[in-house]
Amino acid sequence: MALPFFYENTVSAASTHFTLSEETSKHCTQVLRMRTGAALQLTDGRGNLFKASIISEDKRKTVVLIEEQTSLPAPAKKTNIAIALLKNNSRFEWFLEKATEIGVTEIQPLLTDHTEHTRFRHDRMNGILIAAMLQSQQAWLPVLHEPIAFNVCVKNATHQQKLIAHCEDEQKNFIRDLPASNDVQVLIGPEGDFSHEEIRLALDAGFIPVSLGNTRLRAETAGVVAATLVVQR
Amino acid sequence: MALPFFYENTVSAASTHFTLSEETSKHCTQVLRMRTGAALQLTDGRGNLFKASIISEDKRKTVVLIEEQTSLPAPAKKTNIAIALLKNNSRFEWFLEKATEIGVTEIQPLLTDHTEHTRFRHDRMNGILIAAMLQSQQAWLPVLHEPIAFNVCVKNATHQQKLIAHCEDEQKNFIRDLPASNDVQVLIGPEGDFSHEEIRLALDAGFIPVSLGNTRLRAETAGVVAATLVVQR
Repeated sequence: MALPFFYENTVSAASTHFTLSEETSKHCTQVLRMRTGAALQLTDGRGNLFKASIISEDKRKTVVLIEEQTSLPAPAKKTNIAIALLKNNSRFEWFLEKATEIGVTEIQPLLTDHTEHTRFRHDRMNGILIAAMLQSQQAWLPVLHEPIAFNVCVKNATHQQKLIAHCEDEQKNFIRDLPASNDVQVLIGPEGDFSHEEIRLALDAGFIPVSLGNTRLRAETAGVVAATLVVQR
Repeated sequence: MALPFFYENTVSAASTHFTLSEETSKHCTQVLRMRTGAALQLTDGRGNLFKASIISEDKRKTVVLIEEQTSLPAPAKKTNIAIALLKNNSRFEWFLEKATEIGVTEIQPLLTDHTEHTRFRHDRMNGILIAAMLQSQQAWLPVLHEPIAFNVCVKNATHQQKLIAHCEDEQKNFIRDLPASNDVQVLIGPEGDFSHEEIRLALDAGFIPVSLGNTRLRAETAGVVAATLVVQR
């Protein structure tokens, strides 16, 4: 069975001892009942994995000995999914979890013409990314950006390959037919799709229109389908 | 805006009048407040779409006039996802919804070595497929089979292309590299993966081992990723 695995963004091998956060200390000692000598794994979310063992149990300040460090290279494929905030938070959170499992490297929430203004709780959303990263045994945490307006995203987009998925009845490409790229951004619209003006703006800025299949997908499904097709090319 | 769209599995154009089910009658009259003359669309889940209008409102027995029928051909691609029942019902239900949106045509719940026996509520699960079909504006309802044991599924599998996704460290193929097929079944294991014996049984029966990417996916994510990669080939 895999070692208990936790995220601690300040852990490093610069020091041999590390004090776990209160949350991790509590989980180790109260929930998992780990005692002195028990082994665990830590990641800083930047590719570094640390094997460690408990030298001093404390429900708020457990201290571990860092025994080994492995550094995993950053994913070769940079996949940025820029997706409109959704009315339904739990659907957006499902997307965050699935996108992380699949290997998306950046998530850019968007405010679009058809988005109802939604409060964005960065810490909560980031917590979902962390949990999904740990669950899928990865060591690179996707970057979760603050929400920005669609036109700002489009204007500042510097990705090598820029794609927009929309529902209007227009000529679109299949992702599988496009040349593979290691630096991709895909724009995913809200429940009501992008507005006509938004689509035009993106196409004028060099975004390639793509089809995600023959069926009408919910926004969070579109995000997961796009992530799969791009990461798996 | 699209017409209100409902599922009625007994509707046909054989008769010009049709009495809506109690559930649909209630939804039309009480929730949507539709009155005599209001237009709606119905599907029987077997590719038939009917345009209709209300001729007699009743919260339990609304009668509609069938005005038009369109028949959509069955999807050319038959995609059967055989997926282990999961401990967490809501994750399994999420998979059902997404699989339907993506265009999966059959879902075969499996009982596997690592599956905890889970009660399977066919009506409830079918209701999720129906809602997802309507939401994604489709007219073909995926077939939801009763759960069967893994070895029975493998023994009786007659699909042209048979795939198994597993997590063991072995030679696997990428779905994109396999020849396209219009008759595919993919086996997806439970949270603890298929057992070694199950994998061997499937390989001996001609199932091709496939990789769903470089990361460790939750079972329901694996189902959605496999569905995407197969339907979108």
